[in-house]
Amino acid sequence: MNDINFEKRISIEQVEESTELAPKFDTDGLIPVVTTDYSSGEVLMQGYMNEEAFKQTITLGQAVYYSRSRNTLWHKGKTSGLIQKIKEIRIDDDQDSVWLRVDVQGGASCHVGYRSCFYRSIPFGDNISSIVLKFEEKEKVFDPKEIYGDAPNPTKL
Amino acid sequence: MNDINFEKRISIEQVEESTELAPKFDTDGLIPVVTTDYSSGEVLMQGYMNEEAFKQTITLGQAVYYSRSRNTLWHKGKTSGLIQKIKEIRIDDDQDSVWLRVDVQGGASCHVGYRSCFYRSIPFGDNISSIVLKFEEKEKVFDPKEIYGDAPNPTKL
Repeated sequence: MNDINFEKRISIEQVEESTELAPKFDTDGLIPVVTTDYSSGEVLMQGYMNEEAFKQTITLGQAVYYSRSRNTLWHKGKTSGLIQKIKEIRIDDDQDSVWLRVDVQGGASCHVGYRSCFYRSIPFGDNISSIVLKFEEKEKVFDPKEIYGDAPNPTKL
Repeated sequence: MNDINFEKRISIEQVEESTELAPKFDTDGLIPVVTTDYSSGEVLMQGYMNEEAFKQTITLGQAVYYSRSRNTLWHKGKTSGLIQKIKEIRIDDDQDSVWLRVDVQGGASCHVGYRSCFYRSIPFGDNISSIVLKFEEKEKVFDPKEIYGDAPNPTKL
């Protein structure tokens, strides 16, 4: 595995208009990542990478995130088998956000068991009086208990 | 415009499996937002909303973000005319991330002038020795100078 170096950020021109990769990590050392399904375009999840996770994602060709709840590198799918194989990596204009386009082995990305983490929609418009979420996915792809057993639920209140 | 109330987060079951909207804002009061083009599925941008921006987005049916660089509500397109009309709003499993599906008036979302903010890709794989970004969009949709004039560039080093 080669060692990858990120460039120093020296000018707006360099960051926005050049071919140099000079990502910006926030004060916690993280960069947000949105992950979409390569075939359907569906947004599967939103996560974070630190510098090491970003470098591993690039060299490994599989999504490696940083888990804020567990404070550790998180090679997605290593426990569940639902590996995210990278098809394309994109960086945004000011290089503080990453877009991963992936193929998911097993077809699901959500620890609750759905294909996408975004399985519910929010009604909108100026006639909304009370908000009732709508389930856009009707059936879970897998049973979380079978896959994760007694591992603690990552959702924090 | 109706006043919208978010629910209190009381249990993992409620957050993950119910129809109640109980979003989690981070310690800065923000929730990350990924915005995709409703027709093409392309990721246009990644931003943030605070509670007020989220409520305005829901009632207005247009994307309202919170600008971290300018510390203010940001009704996208109010300056440039490139309004993002909401087609669908989704929330993720633990309700700490939002997905907006939008139609963009004018066809561009990026202050640099491209259709998407993610106009460059990053090469990947274990044979990568040096990283050279590739421009996936060849031509700008608009000239930023014509649209924004002398307004300060939002990109921060």
